[in-house]
Amino acid sequence: MDTRTVGCLGGGQLGRMMVYAAHRLGVRMCVLDPLGAKSPAGQVAELSVKGSFQDAAAVRELASKCDILTLEVEHVNAEVLEELHQKGVPVQPLPFVVKLIQDKYVQKVHLQKHGVPLPEFEKVETEAELHTIGEKFGFPMMLKSRCGAYDGKGNAVVANAAGIPAAWEKLGGKAGKTLYVEKWAPFKMELAVMVARGVDETMQVTMRTYPVVHTVQRDSVCFTCLTPPVGVTQKEQELAQKIATDAIKSFGDARGIFGVEMFLLEDGSVLLNEIAPRPHNTGHYTMEACGVDQFEQHLRCVLGLPLGDCNLRVGGATMVNILGQGETPEMVAKTMAPLRRALRVPDAGIHWYGKEGCAKGRKMGHITVTGFTPASALEEIQPVLAAVDGDGSIDYNSIKVPNNPSVGIIMGSDSDLPTMKDAAVVLDDFGIPYEISIVSAHRTPEYMYKYATTAEARGINVIIAGAGGAAHLPGMVAALTPLPVIGVPVKSSALSGNDSLLSIVQMPKGVPVATVAIGNAANAGLLAVRILGAANPGMRQKMARFMAACQQCEGVCQVLQTKGTEASGRASQLIFLEGWIPELRV
Amino acid sequence: MDTRTVGCLGGGQLGRMMVYAAHRLGVRMCVLDPLGAKSPAGQVAELSVKGSFQDAAAVRELASKCDILTLEVEHVNAEVLEELHQKGVPVQPLPFVVKLIQDKYVQKVHLQKHGVPLPEFEKVETEAELHTIGEKFGFPMMLKSRCGAYDGKGNAVVANAAGIPAAWEKLGGKAGKTLYVEKWAPFKMELAVMVARGVDETMQVTMRTYPVVHTVQRDSVCFTCLTPPVGVTQKEQELAQKIATDAIKSFGDARGIFGVEMFLLEDGSVLLNEIAPRPHNTGHYTMEACGVDQFEQHLRCVLGLPLGDCNLRVGGATMVNILGQGETPEMVAKTMAPLRRALRVPDAGIHWYGKEGCAKGRKMGHITVTGFTPASALEEIQPVLAAVDGDGSIDYNSIKVPNNPSVGIIMGSDSDLPTMKDAAVVLDDFGIPYEISIVSAHRTPEYMYKYATTAEARGINVIIAGAGGAAHLPGMVAALTPLPVIGVPVKSSALSGNDSLLSIVQMPKGVPVATVAIGNAANAGLLAVRILGAANPGMRQKMARFMAACQQCEGVCQVLQTKGTEASGRASQLIFLEGWIPELRV
Repeated sequence: MDTRTVGCLGGGQLGRMMVYAAHRLGVRMCVLDPLGAKSPAGQVAELSVKGSFQDAAAVRELASKCDILTLEVEHVNAEVLEELHQKGVPVQPLPFVVKLIQDKYVQKVHLQKHGVPLPEFEKVETEAELHTIGEKFGFPMMLKSRCGAYDGKGNAVVANAAGIPAAWEKLGGKAGKTLYVEKWAPFKMELAVMVARGVDETMQVTMRTYPVVHTVQRDSVCFTCLTPPVGVTQKEQELAQKIATDAIKSFGDARGIFGVEMFLLEDGSVLLNEIAPRPHNTGHYTMEACGVDQFEQHLRCVLGLPLGDCNLRVGGATMVNILGQGETPEMVAKTMAPLRRALRVPDAGIHWYGKEGCAKGRKMGHITVTGFTPASALEEIQPVLAAVDGDGSIDYNSIKVPNNPSVGIIMGSDSDLPTMKDAAVVLDDFGIPYEISIVSAHRTPEYMYKYATTAEARGINVIIAGAGGAAHLPGMVAALTPLPVIGVPVKSSALSGNDSLLSIVQMPKGVPVATVAIGNAANAGLLAVRILGAANPGMRQKMARFMAACQQCEGVCQVLQTKGTEASGRASQLIFLEGWIPELRV
Repeated sequence: MDTRTVGCLGGGQLGRMMVYAAHRLGVRMCVLDPLGAKSPAGQVAELSVKGSFQDAAAVRELASKCDILTLEVEHVNAEVLEELHQKGVPVQPLPFVVKLIQDKYVQKVHLQKHGVPLPEFEKVETEAELHTIGEKFGFPMMLKSRCGAYDGKGNAVVANAAGIPAAWEKLGGKAGKTLYVEKWAPFKMELAVMVARGVDETMQVTMRTYPVVHTVQRDSVCFTCLTPPVGVTQKEQELAQKIATDAIKSFGDARGIFGVEMFLLEDGSVLLNEIAPRPHNTGHYTMEACGVDQFEQHLRCVLGLPLGDCNLRVGGATMVNILGQGETPEMVAKTMAPLRRALRVPDAGIHWYGKEGCAKGRKMGHITVTGFTPASALEEIQPVLAAVDGDGSIDYNSIKVPNNPSVGIIMGSDSDLPTMKDAAVVLDDFGIPYEISIVSAHRTPEYMYKYATTAEARGINVIIAGAGGAAHLPGMVAALTPLPVIGVPVKSSALSGNDSLLSIVQMPKGVPVATVAIGNAANAGLLAVRILGAANPGMRQKMARFMAACQQCEGVCQVLQTKGTEASGRASQLIFLEGWIPELRV
C-alpha cells in the first residue's frame, strides 16, 4: 500500500516480526545487521545490509537504500542518525529520543523533569560516593550501568555497605564505566505497557495505549507476561497506563511504539523503571491478543499511517520466552521441547525466530497462550512452562493463580448451601470453573466489599449470589462490580421466599440483578452458562445440546437430577473451612 | 521444532502464508514455482527451485532437497508424485487423491460411490449427447471442464437448448477437451468448510473441522466469505460439516487440509460442489478468527504433528479478496485503496501477497474483519467493500445484513413501549446495536417461535423480553434459544405487576429467565451491557465508568434521566410499522 522502503537498524527477532507486519501491509523493508541476510529479520526482508548498527558507514549505506529509518534495538549509532535526520532523512523515533534513552541516567533526569514518578536515583562517579548514597537511600539499593545495558546486564544489587566494592568492581566503575544508583523500589509486581505514538489524519500527534501486562523476570530476563494482570485493580491499571503515556508525551514529535516498564508498589502507587523506544518483549502477546500487534503498530506510527486498535480481543493472555539451552543437538531438542508441548495446547501461538545456533540464554522464540480469562490463559500455559523448566528451578507459585474460576458462587450463609449447590452442579456439568464462598452483606460487609470490588481483576466473569429474607447480597455486590450478577432468592421460613424474591429483584434503576425463581439455583447456573455463551459460540452449542437433551426428559431434567447428590459433596468441599477466598482475607 | 524440510509444489500466496506458519513452528520450507525465489512464497522461504510444478524433473529436484512434499495448487504433475511416493518419499496429501481431484468428473464419481450428496452429473463426449442430457436435467445446466479449471474458468452455464453449441465451443468440446455436465443446483447460498486430516499421538488418522463459511462469488471468483453464516440454522451448519468430513474420510490415509465447497438448497439440504486438497481462499479468515489457522494446520497434518484447535475465537469474521485492477500506477493505487481504508477499521487484518505486477483479476491480497457478531463483522467491512468496488458494480444487497443488532428487544404489545424504550435508551448510550419488535406469545405464537429459534443465527447475543399480566413471552423465548433472556415484568393495572413478575421469574428448572424489577427496562438494558461485558473487557470498562458517574448523581441516575425523552422517539421509529422483523415475516 506504500511504495516506501523502511530501513531497520537491527535484524533480530523484533525486526523479523516487524518484517512480517511490513509484508502484510505491502511495505518493503531493508535491515542492517552484522549477520545481514542471515539475521532473523534479514532472512525474510526484501533487502539487507551486512554491518554493525554502531558503524556510521553501514548506517549511511542503509539510509541510501531506504525512504525512512527506524530501529529494533536502541544501542545504535545515534550520532549518525542525528546527522542523517538533519540532512532530511526521516528517522523515527527521533534520534534525540534514542540518545536520551541510551543513557539511563539522562533518561531518568528527563523523565523527572517532566514529572514522571520514578524511584529516587543519583549519579555516582566514585566508589566513595556510593557509601554516602547508601546511607541516604538505605539498602538494598541498585547500582546500574548508564549505557549499553539490557536484559539485566549492567545491574547489580548492593545488599549492604560491605557489598559496595564488589558491585563497583562488577559493573566496571573502577575501569571508568559510567554508573548511577537507584533507591530500591519495594514493588509487589512489575508491570509494563506498550504506548503507540503516531499521527492522525491531520498529521497531529496521537497516542494509543495497550493493556497493562504483569511481567515476571527470571535471572533478570523477561520470563513470562500476563495480561490483564491478576490482582491489579482497574484503578492501578489506569494509573500505569497514564504514567506510561505521560512519559512518552515528553518525547516531542517522536513516533513509534515504546515499551514502558514499571513497578507497582504495595500502596498501589506506580513508578516508572525503564523505556525502550521500539517493539518490546512485553508486547509480544499483542500478536494473538489485540486488534493490531505491536510490530504493525510500530510501522503504522513510523509511516504516519492510521493507528490500529490496541484493545484485547481475548479475556487474557500469557507469554513465555523460550531461551536457548546450548548448542548440542540434545540442548537444541530441549530448547524446542516447549514448542512441541504447546502444539497440544488449544490456544497457543508458537513463534520460533529462525536464529542460527542455540546459545545458552539467547531468546530463540516465544509462546503466547490466550484464554477466556487471564486465569485460564495462565492455567493453560502451565504444561508449556513445565516443559521450559527442564531442571525444575522455577518457583511457579509466584506466577500461578490458585484457581481459575470464571464464575463466583456466593451465599449469605452456609444454610444456603443445599439450595446453592445446584448452581455448582450445572457449572461442573458444562466444564466451567467456579469458586464458592460464604459472603454476607450484613455479617461480613468488609469481606463482601473486597470480594465484589476485586472479582473482575481476579478473572471472574459472572457472579451468582444467593440470599434469603432481607436478601441484600446480590444487589450490594451488583452495586460494586461491573460484572453481571445473578440473584437466587433462597426460600425463607417466614414468608416462603417472597421476602427474598422482592429484596433481590426490585433493584433501583442503575443497578440490575438478574433474578431467577425462588430456590432455583440450577437456573442460576444455566443462566451463567448462557451469559458466558453470549460471546462464545462453543458454549452456546453446549447449551443448545443440553436443551435438546431436556426435550427428551419426561417432566424433570434428568441431567440435573442424576448428578445432584454426588456433586453436593464436591460443592461442600469447595467451601473453604471458614468460607473465605484466601487472598481476600480481611 | 522439527529438523525436516517441507517441499511445496507452487509458490503463490497460499504457499507464502504456509511459509509464515512454517517459520513460526521452526520448520524449513523449499518451494517449487516458475518464479522460484521471486514467487510470493519463494521470497520468504529458506529454499526455492525455479521450475514448473508440472515438470517431472523440477519436481524430482524439489524432492531431492526436502524430507516431505506437499502442495498449494492441485494442477501439478501427479504422476511423478506417485512415482516419488512409491520410492519412499513422503507426499501428503497422497498422490492418488490429488489425481482423483484433478479430474472433477472422476472426483464426483468417487464421492458418489461414497454416498456424498452431489448435484446430478454426467460425462459428455459429443455435442449431441448434450442435448439428450439437457432434456433429462432440464435448463439451466452447468457444462464444466473435467481438468485444469479453477476460479470459474472452465465453467459454462447452458441456459437452454439453443445455448448448447456456444457452450460446447467455449469450453473446447470441439477441440477434444474432456467435459462433463451438472444438473443446476437451485442453491440459496454457497457454503464452504475446511477439514483438517492428520494423525493423533498413536499415528491413527484424526480429523478436525473448521466452522462453516458463507461464500459469495463475483464473476465466478470468491469475493467475500462470512462466518458463521447469517441465516443458516445450527442444523444446516452441522449438516454441511458432516458432509464435508464424510467426503474427506473417503480419501484413505491422505493428510492435509481440504477446502470443501457446497450448495445449501432452499429445503435445508446440502450438496457438495468441489474439493481442493490444500489451503483454500475460503479458509483465510482462520488467520484472525480461529485457534490455529489453515496454513499451520496443513503443516501440522502433513508433518504428523498434533492438530490445532479449529474453533472460532471471535463472534464473526468477514473476508474480502483484493484483485488486481491493472498494471498502471493508477491501477495499482486503486488496487491498494481498500488496504488503506482497512487501516481505519479497528478489527481488520490486512494481507498483501507481495506479487510482482498487478494484473487485472489476479489475487493480490485479502482483508479479514472480525467482530463481536457476524453481523458486526459484516457491517465493519462495508467501507472496505466500498473501496474495493471502485466502479460501483457490486450489488451489496446480496451480502449485506439490514441491521447488525446484538441485542433483541421484544415486547408483547405496543402498549409496553413506554416501559421498554428505557432498555433502548441504555443500549444507545453504550453504543450497542439492537432491534425492537412486537412479539406476542399468545397473539403471534408462530412469529415468536421463528423469532426465538432464529435469533442466534441472526447474530443476536442477548434478548430482552417485556410482558405484563400472564407474561409468558420471556420464558417461552428462553425455552427456544440458548441465548440469555432478560425478562421485564411490565406493570399491570389489575395486580400492579405482581402477576407479570411471578409469571416471568418463577421458571421451572432447566430454563432460566434473568428477571429485573417491575417496569425497570433500564436495568434490563444495563444487564444486557453487563452480559456482553462478561467476555469483553472494553465493555466492562464502559460499565465501570457508568457506575462511577452514577455515584456522582443525587439519587436518580442523570445519565438515564436526561436522555429518556429524546430517545423515546427513536425507539418508536425502530418498531417496524407492523412490528415485524422483515425477514421473519410468517
